[in-house]
Amino acid sequence: MFGITPSARLRSSPYYDATVAAGVTAFTSYNHMLMPTSFGDPEGEYWRLLNGVAQWDVAVERQVELTGPDAGRLAQILTARDLSRCVPGQGKYVPLCNHDGILINDPILLKLADDHYWLSIADSNIWFWAQAIAAERGLKVTVAEPDVSPLAVQGPKAEDVVASIFGDWVRALKYFWFKETSIEGIPLVLARSGWSKQGGFELYLRDGSKGTALWDLVREAGRPWDIGPGNPNFCERVETGLLSYGGDTDAHTNPYEVRLGKYIDLHVPDDVIGIAALRRIHAQGPRRHQLGVLLDDTEPMALGNLWHDIYQADRRVGSMTNGVWSWRLQRNIGFALVDAQCAVGARVTVLQRGLARPGTLAALPFI
Amino acid sequence: MFGITPSARLRSSPYYDATVAAGVTAFTSYNHMLMPTSFGDPEGEYWRLLNGVAQWDVAVERQVELTGPDAGRLAQILTARDLSRCVPGQGKYVPLCNHDGILINDPILLKLADDHYWLSIADSNIWFWAQAIAAERGLKVTVAEPDVSPLAVQGPKAEDVVASIFGDWVRALKYFWFKETSIEGIPLVLARSGWSKQGGFELYLRDGSKGTALWDLVREAGRPWDIGPGNPNFCERVETGLLSYGGDTDAHTNPYEVRLGKYIDLHVPDDVIGIAALRRIHAQGPRRHQLGVLLDDTEPMALGNLWHDIYQADRRVGSMTNGVWSWRLQRNIGFALVDAQCAVGARVTVLQRGLARPGTLAALPFI
Repeated sequence: MFGITPSARLRSSPYYDATVAAGVTAFTSYNHMLMPTSFGDPEGEYWRLLNGVAQWDVAVERQVELTGPDAGRLAQILTARDLSRCVPGQGKYVPLCNHDGILINDPILLKLADDHYWLSIADSNIWFWAQAIAAERGLKVTVAEPDVSPLAVQGPKAEDVVASIFGDWVRALKYFWFKETSIEGIPLVLARSGWSKQGGFELYLRDGSKGTALWDLVREAGRPWDIGPGNPNFCERVETGLLSYGGDTDAHTNPYEVRLGKYIDLHVPDDVIGIAALRRIHAQGPRRHQLGVLLDDTEPMALGNLWHDIYQADRRVGSMTNGVWSWRLQRNIGFALVDAQCAVGARVTVLQRGLARPGTLAALPFI
Repeated sequence: MFGITPSARLRSSPYYDATVAAGVTAFTSYNHMLMPTSFGDPEGEYWRLLNGVAQWDVAVERQVELTGPDAGRLAQILTARDLSRCVPGQGKYVPLCNHDGILINDPILLKLADDHYWLSIADSNIWFWAQAIAAERGLKVTVAEPDVSPLAVQGPKAEDVVASIFGDWVRALKYFWFKETSIEGIPLVLARSGWSKQGGFELYLRDGSKGTALWDLVREAGRPWDIGPGNPNFCERVETGLLSYGGDTDAHTNPYEVRLGKYIDLHVPDDVIGIAALRRIHAQGPRRHQLGVLLDDTEPMALGNLWHDIYQADRRVGSMTNGVWSWRLQRNIGFALVDAQCAVGARVTVLQRGLARPGTLAALPFI
């Protein structure tokens, strides 16, 4: 483990002071900001997410804000998911592709109004992308980064905690839907969402000066449910099959290769970026696909969040794009981005710095 | 200091193993890669750069490669610096702007051939930007990231070290000019460049599997000159006035505000992105400008590479965008991005977490 500190290029989050007070020990960088990756007890933080409730600083999920009369038109041009029936208050998971149909981000779109959208992005620069497209096409839309910083509350007890703060109306909120609200003078958007499969909410803080106030408010409200600090959980997300853009994708990955085909609507208008390429890829079938890989070893291995070659017999068939010890399965697991002819059940070998690790291809999600 | 480790989203460099062996203690992230920021002896590393020679892992200076018949046309569309007389083998510092004339990167352009360019970029995603422009304008050009990873050799003794490896021809190389060459089977581009004012070269390694080989070759060749490991030096770059895109700029900064007006040629064709806005900004004069700030205190302060508000009397006039103890000046110094009416010599106050630090605006560079 090596050191990192905030800098002007790696901004700290509005929750930075609060996470330091809560005992954060490590960060990653994401959208030019620091995000906590550990509070020093990986297994405890995992089980807290599975059985209780955790609060996460996910301010790095930055918003690309589209405002103006052509905001909706630009939103549809940017994604091949059909937005024609999306209404204010609704969110949607929208893969973004370039002109060749290659995935460049996989944000949650939040439609605040007909002329006001947020793209809550993964780790790549969509401000430049959207500005380039808007300017080149002469659209009447402003692309900017607003003062918005999500705080996630995740786990089976998250709903009780969030309802205790905002009221029982939150229990009726559908997945990815949201509402503009405030608490103790702190303006925010409350959405049922979050990068885990354990259920929960994201509080999109709309005033960066109130990060500590919101963090502390959630921590105090969560005490009866024994809330604790956490962060997007590497083990849980691999077990449940959640994709990491940039982690599990490369410069050539299309949505069909990584289980996102169901979010591509091939009937969208021809001016949607990448739609011609996506129709072609869909017709031909993708050359790679994403499966799980279950390694034989029954002891935890230091696989890391790195790519390793996968071999079937003597032929390289792809990469293991992440690897982690699963506390529930008591096995080392990961994602495999492999040739389309590789099937679930096939025996493979993962090469890690010269060491051959035998395993089996598996269906995703693992759990 | 908190921990960070490589991940699939934060790639390690081809020199990673070599820098770990050399005792790296901290990293930053830059273009989704890890870059060493310390080998544990900040002052020793500074004086080595000033008086001797250091080798730096700057693989994070990634290349946006433009190839094809329209490569030159796209290069000119992307920058308002006139490239019409740029020849193969020549490099140029080229500010890139968006359609509003706002700075989005400040790469070194290397013209390898009429149909082959590299943009050796600072820390923002220019692949997406260039791909969007090329596709929207229907240009015949491929935008990609090649396997190229610079290693810098910097300091007054750098020329002797590099000449001992490649021959005395390197002494005749002009600033930013380069030559394609190889050493012991390692293919590279050798350029006279580097992010310091102490002189030196950058070795653009063209085979990522040979990082340790190239690092070790330079280290062994440099022994007579007592070469050591280092990295872009925060103190030296502030003393000598080198700009950090994303560190000293925000989402509204134009080139005229940060001393880059001399690299903007207002006569370039109208299809150059941002040229109309740049002509307007030039005619009106920028609203902010970049100066130095020299603080009164004569003891080193923990200012950090972070923005702090600057006040003149009771009025906020801008930001100190970095701050560092200068070992040569024996004072705390930084860059000030302030209202255009603020002049060198003006007394100001820098606010750091509520603490008021008095100082004086100064000309850049300091040294």
